[in-house]
Amino acid sequence: MKGSESLLATAVAAGVQVCFANPGTTEIPLVEAFDQVPGLRPVLALSEGVVTGAADGHARMTGAPALTLLHLGPGFANGIANLHNARRARTPVINLIGEHASWHQAADAPLASDIESLAAPVSGWVGRTTSAANAAAEFAAAHRAAREQRLPATLIAAADHMWSDGGRPAEVAAVPGPPAVDDQQVAAIAKLLTRGRGRPALLLGDRALAPEAVRTAARIAATVGGEVFAERTPARIDRAPDVPAVRPIPYFPEDVLRVLDGFSDLVLVGARTPVSFFGYQGLPSYPVPDGVQVHTLADVEQDAVEALRALAEATGSAATEVPLPAPPEVSVPDGALTAAGIAAAIVSTQPEGAIVVNEGVSSGAAYPALAAAAPAHSELTNTGGAIGMGIPVATGAAIACPDRPVIGFQADGSAAYSLQALWTQAREQLDVTTVICANSRYAILRAELRRAGIDQPGPAAAGMTDLTGPAVDWVAAAQGFGVPATRATTGAELIDALRRAHAEPGPHLVEAVL
Amino acid sequence: MKGSESLLATAVAAGVQVCFANPGTTEIPLVEAFDQVPGLRPVLALSEGVVTGAADGHARMTGAPALTLLHLGPGFANGIANLHNARRARTPVINLIGEHASWHQAADAPLASDIESLAAPVSGWVGRTTSAANAAAEFAAAHRAAREQRLPATLIAAADHMWSDGGRPAEVAAVPGPPAVDDQQVAAIAKLLTRGRGRPALLLGDRALAPEAVRTAARIAATVGGEVFAERTPARIDRAPDVPAVRPIPYFPEDVLRVLDGFSDLVLVGARTPVSFFGYQGLPSYPVPDGVQVHTLADVEQDAVEALRALAEATGSAATEVPLPAPPEVSVPDGALTAAGIAAAIVSTQPEGAIVVNEGVSSGAAYPALAAAAPAHSELTNTGGAIGMGIPVATGAAIACPDRPVIGFQADGSAAYSLQALWTQAREQLDVTTVICANSRYAILRAELRRAGIDQPGPAAAGMTDLTGPAVDWVAAAQGFGVPATRATTGAELIDALRRAHAEPGPHLVEAVL
Repeated sequence: MKGSESLLATAVAAGVQVCFANPGTTEIPLVEAFDQVPGLRPVLALSEGVVTGAADGHARMTGAPALTLLHLGPGFANGIANLHNARRARTPVINLIGEHASWHQAADAPLASDIESLAAPVSGWVGRTTSAANAAAEFAAAHRAAREQRLPATLIAAADHMWSDGGRPAEVAAVPGPPAVDDQQVAAIAKLLTRGRGRPALLLGDRALAPEAVRTAARIAATVGGEVFAERTPARIDRAPDVPAVRPIPYFPEDVLRVLDGFSDLVLVGARTPVSFFGYQGLPSYPVPDGVQVHTLADVEQDAVEALRALAEATGSAATEVPLPAPPEVSVPDGALTAAGIAAAIVSTQPEGAIVVNEGVSSGAAYPALAAAAPAHSELTNTGGAIGMGIPVATGAAIACPDRPVIGFQADGSAAYSLQALWTQAREQLDVTTVICANSRYAILRAELRRAGIDQPGPAAAGMTDLTGPAVDWVAAAQGFGVPATRATTGAELIDALRRAHAEPGPHLVEAVL
Repeated sequence: MKGSESLLATAVAAGVQVCFANPGTTEIPLVEAFDQVPGLRPVLALSEGVVTGAADGHARMTGAPALTLLHLGPGFANGIANLHNARRARTPVINLIGEHASWHQAADAPLASDIESLAAPVSGWVGRTTSAANAAAEFAAAHRAAREQRLPATLIAAADHMWSDGGRPAEVAAVPGPPAVDDQQVAAIAKLLTRGRGRPALLLGDRALAPEAVRTAARIAATVGGEVFAERTPARIDRAPDVPAVRPIPYFPEDVLRVLDGFSDLVLVGARTPVSFFGYQGLPSYPVPDGVQVHTLADVEQDAVEALRALAEATGSAATEVPLPAPPEVSVPDGALTAAGIAAAIVSTQPEGAIVVNEGVSSGAAYPALAAAAPAHSELTNTGGAIGMGIPVATGAAIACPDRPVIGFQADGSAAYSLQALWTQAREQLDVTTVICANSRYAILRAELRRAGIDQPGPAAAGMTDLTGPAVDWVAAAQGFGVPATRATTGAELIDALRRAHAEPGPHLVEAVL
């Protein structure tokens, strides 16, 4: 058995079913092995940013490690930005990078580079194969690291280790669940919440955004007179009519200070202290008002779900009934489109069980507040701020969940980074509807210029934040990559286009002109 | 004066005229400064791979450092692959990366990452600003490093150093020219070449491919009974009817062994010993036949042009007349297109003074042998093997040389990496004609599968090397990014489309269906 075959057989035995791939010559022994080892479906993408973003989306939906196949340092490098997001999402991804044959590495051939240096910033684990015989065990180590750390793990596989005989499949070890929160910590937080002074806020993130955890947190808040918040950019949040809505932490630090004003305590549950997305003059890195004391019930490593259950018991909240507030009114204005109108149109047409990948940036900010009016769905967001994740993540989520419709709420500036992902959607006939919010500018940068006191940017600043001259024709571009597309300029047209896209199988794109 | 303004003023004083940019919030102080500091033209691109590839193309044509503006680690990461090619091309590029405000870096905000670790593999110099007052001097150090090393230099500029007052423009130091080759080395090589035994080969690379150097080398070869070769992937080679043609080193190592067979010596002039692009079982990393002795006249750091002049004198070749052989016959078959037919159509229609960016991969291999029949032109190639450089490099070359037509000889698989560059061509109305060789497959990988003994790949390997289902509609995709496009399926159609594209101003794309 070749090293490549032993490695793929180990992946299949560990439950890996899909490999997102953009291979090159150093991966040829692995490419061949897909035809020798049954059970692993290769999904080809036209560039590596699509590969890694799709892996992130896939793993966010399955909870299991997703596998990528990438070509040497430069091919891997094209996937770094979406791996940065995967790292911030705490997504287990295993990157398999084909490297030059071990005896050829010293020759510094044109494609050679320092792969470890490139991989380390986005990987919790980086390793190399040492022989055909060891390759499967080395893959098993990467698989284990990805699950234990919930981070990308990167295995650099030398071509000769892959093409040589002597491979032996390895076993993938079980990994322990998240460590429990100490009883004393639960008791201390319970004492704090029940002391009868002030008004506490619970900030949920990561695993604490699972529906059962949100319900538990809402019971606690109702009992102690507090409120529940969600971290601003969850890797995944599952909403349903019978799950209490949680208030999102805003983007700008002054808004975070405003919404947290008046609380006595901020209890972190699987979340970090809020951090300003950027540093602004006169505003703090950690926008928490002076009077608010911060406590940690569970950090992102710990078992936040069980910690909340224990806290509910300790605070006498386990049986508290939480009335579900009426969902927000959602109406789509019939005239020219606005960002809020696009969000309303998506909410009011989205099918039951949809997966909404929100990379709407400035246009997508309205979605979370309206989403309580939508049927049950999962929202995946841009966790790391590296733009261009939306269409790739939607692609991977659709591969993971073929029975769930996927909706991409997509800013145009970000869409231009990784439009190539549409081709994979067309090839795999995925049920993804991408809504491009075509405002033809980097609107977030215009907002930043205004914050810096520049209401009327000069020609250079205007040009560097403007996406016209020409505006991208998203309908033509999508058709170029094989996805049928249409354009909507009013609320009624958008609703009509969305309904038709949801009714037909396969991918669609709607350019919503702002 | 703000730090950002002092930095840009220093760039302008050093002769930088263009900045290829994809900025984000941490670059807002620099974006603003473009309107305060005259003389620096920002060129916006839709993704960072376009930014860095365009900078590479610009600097290859001007010989001076090109400037980029990139957003934090993830934005920079998207540009790494084309910086890898720039590093292999020995191109001076200065990357200016906006980083979080210095006091915000410890907060590990979502976009924070280890930028140095990402930058080091593709940069000869990496530094950080330390204050508004020092920023310009730090830029000057990056500028000097880029010129001295002829490599990318990366300066990480903290937002607060850019927005703060106290900036002071700095002077950019002159850098010495390349070190001269030792007289004794020239004499030793001259003795070797004139000893009257065997048949030497001169392998030219880098600066030794300048027309005057090629003429000198051809005189030497004619005098001593040798032959002149060119490195396989030159950053730039300028051909003209009055410049002797040089034979390119082939791609596969067995072909290199074949063309070098029978030579007594291989004299390197601004070139490295040939290295196999990949390692193959049973073939060496350095494909030089056993009987061939390798000598270095000038390494890539040294003054290869002057070394050749001195060698010509020492070998009595300075006045040798080199008859120019008749150019190859070029004919374009009228029926269905072939890769060689596309090369012939490009050669037979290319206008005087064209810049040909050859990322044809398997389809582009025929071009160098036919190019002697073309009018004077420059060819830029993929020096590092990271695909997706073609359309971006063509974009930057067109910005650098507005009076010269640019032709992109472009493989389809590689085009799919960075098609977004067409938008910048449309926006800047650049005279670029992109010819997509649409074979709808990763043909080089099919060739590699055949080399590995697999003539009939299984469904997985076939699917991972196939770009159909759907085939990309390059005409629609180009129109999506604002570039008029047409499709050609025969030699006659292709010639007609090329003539029309060359006759009209602005960018065009021709899909040549194989």
